[in-house]
Amino acid sequence: MTTIKDIAKRLGVSTSTVSKGLNGGRDISDVLRQQILETAVEMGYTSKHSRKPEHRTLALFIENMEYEEADQFGYEIVLGFRQAAYKENWNVELLPITAEFQETHRYDTLMLESGYSASFALGFALDDPWMKQFETTTFNTILLDNFILGNPKVGYVGTDNDEAMELIIRHLISLGHEKIAFLDGSPHSLVSDQRMGAYLKYMKQYHLQIDPNLAVYGYFVANAAKYHVPGFLQLGATAIICGNDAIASGAIASCIAEGYSVPDDVSIVGFDDLPFAAHLTPALTTIRQNRLAVGKSAVYALHAMLNECELSRSQLRPELITRASVSGAKPRLVTNRTTDKDSVLYVNPQLYAQHAYQQF
Amino acid sequence: MTTIKDIAKRLGVSTSTVSKGLNGGRDISDVLRQQILETAVEMGYTSKHSRKPEHRTLALFIENMEYEEADQFGYEIVLGFRQAAYKENWNVELLPITAEFQETHRYDTLMLESGYSASFALGFALDDPWMKQFETTTFNTILLDNFILGNPKVGYVGTDNDEAMELIIRHLISLGHEKIAFLDGSPHSLVSDQRMGAYLKYMKQYHLQIDPNLAVYGYFVANAAKYHVPGFLQLGATAIICGNDAIASGAIASCIAEGYSVPDDVSIVGFDDLPFAAHLTPALTTIRQNRLAVGKSAVYALHAMLNECELSRSQLRPELITRASVSGAKPRLVTNRTTDKDSVLYVNPQLYAQHAYQQF
Repeated sequence: MTTIKDIAKRLGVSTSTVSKGLNGGRDISDVLRQQILETAVEMGYTSKHSRKPEHRTLALFIENMEYEEADQFGYEIVLGFRQAAYKENWNVELLPITAEFQETHRYDTLMLESGYSASFALGFALDDPWMKQFETTTFNTILLDNFILGNPKVGYVGTDNDEAMELIIRHLISLGHEKIAFLDGSPHSLVSDQRMGAYLKYMKQYHLQIDPNLAVYGYFVANAAKYHVPGFLQLGATAIICGNDAIASGAIASCIAEGYSVPDDVSIVGFDDLPFAAHLTPALTTIRQNRLAVGKSAVYALHAMLNECELSRSQLRPELITRASVSGAKPRLVTNRTTDKDSVLYVNPQLYAQHAYQQF
Repeated sequence: MTTIKDIAKRLGVSTSTVSKGLNGGRDISDVLRQQILETAVEMGYTSKHSRKPEHRTLALFIENMEYEEADQFGYEIVLGFRQAAYKENWNVELLPITAEFQETHRYDTLMLESGYSASFALGFALDDPWMKQFETTTFNTILLDNFILGNPKVGYVGTDNDEAMELIIRHLISLGHEKIAFLDGSPHSLVSDQRMGAYLKYMKQYHLQIDPNLAVYGYFVANAAKYHVPGFLQLGATAIICGNDAIASGAIASCIAEGYSVPDDVSIVGFDDLPFAAHLTPALTTIRQNRLAVGKSAVYALHAMLNECELSRSQLRPELITRASVSGAKPRLVTNRTTDKDSVLYVNPQLYAQHAYQQF
């Protein structure tokens, strides 16, 4: 294990200088302090400071996720994290993070400098600068819905998307649906990929035909629906699974705009069970992510990792909440309307093919 | 929440009789005690007794797994479970369980009767009687390497087989291997299925050709190798991944018996890193399951579940341990020996096809 002495030797300075650099002492230059911190990180030094019970602090980094209001996705995750941390005698420091901040602050340096024992990072996208740094960090870190191959210091928590999709597809099949479309969220998101993979797997496993035009990526917003739903309807889909509740709300609107009734003509299923899902017309059948439990489980996962259990993935149970937006399938002929070009423009069989290929 | 009063009312007896039945009081008949216990289980009663700190006991059920000697698979799992439980102030009761015992003892009844707060179950096979009961149990339960769909009371811990297979295949590819065979463990095991699914997925993802005759299920014993390895060699495999270290030891012996050198002609990879793996000739490249961490993680997973985090899967990081049984691929022509009928008899493309189909 790297000591202050090792760092002092490498830099050719005294141990008291290193100590000042690490602990925020005033009488050294900013340049030297930065050099000490970065050398300490490079040598894998873990501050003793972060291990004293009175300094036990977990960092909660939030990038690109709303969490301040009760009806936002991140709200209960943050709350659950704070609740479990409190119960386990941890302090929590919440830090909103931008891409620009990541460009100028190295993750390990920040962790060391601030004396954090471990962190939970929410909302990071695959192209965020820190994602690359998570591949080699020496700090225990939990990511929401993101997986880093091969670094045992970084674990992943999230809802089990494979099980969620199986629950949805079994439910729809039990009601007679066969032509089931899937309008996923954004591509280049691990969650979207997992759900698309699970959709293809269970459609096949339950002997339903897969039509590449009924399995597409969109974006995680309501507006995404209008580009795809008309095409699905023309192809005769009797049920549409959506990548989140916002997309589902757009899908309901889009069906109505096209003259279809939900659920009499088409059933709609969402993902997440945000507070508004129960108040849509019709009320939305969706997958509940227990976001309070997701937040809590991050604390328990960090607890395990700090006790030498190198977790890769820790997944929570999804729950299918059945409401009025799904009913039995009514056999329906495929309509003969002319194709609206806009609506098929975004159906992207290439993306589909690429994914199907990766999954096999 | 069901109370003693509810149970008394249902059975038409006094609350003190129910209390005696639940707490082992002496002056009631065995028949009545059994009736009280079974009614309590049916009504979802959770003993208060099991929640008092001085009675906090976790059950460790072991079926069909060796754990008494340091070189057996279960040894470190049991040790890790005991270590973490001790640290978290839990008592542990270890109970070896047979299939016959499961026939005559209902799982929930035993849990309630014994006052266990939660349990960790090792080595259960898919056709074990309790596996059916785990689908509806109301007791927090962690299974090693087994997944129950849809019951949030039952979680799963194990090593991440998907990541393990990717680590192996990337390593072999980096050494120039393309014809990579996989001799899996027994069919009808979740672990075997995960590894086969991951093998097919990553072979495809890394653009290697899949030959159904090079991807077969066997059994988790050294002897399984001799039925398959000669066939693999004739088909020109330059590397053989095995479903566990025992199969890998058999594969080395089988290669030598066929006149091939390991690793000069053929590379061999195992799974598990049991203590003997390092002492084989050549020493075995294999996936280390950190079994101590697997045992510990079961305690932390139960801790999370007892705090309202309904875990589905909690997976640990695998580690690729590189030793002498793997080297660079030497280009080799497929031999023209006549086919040994015995050796291909067990190559079962049907099983393969079935699995590939399920996986999509």
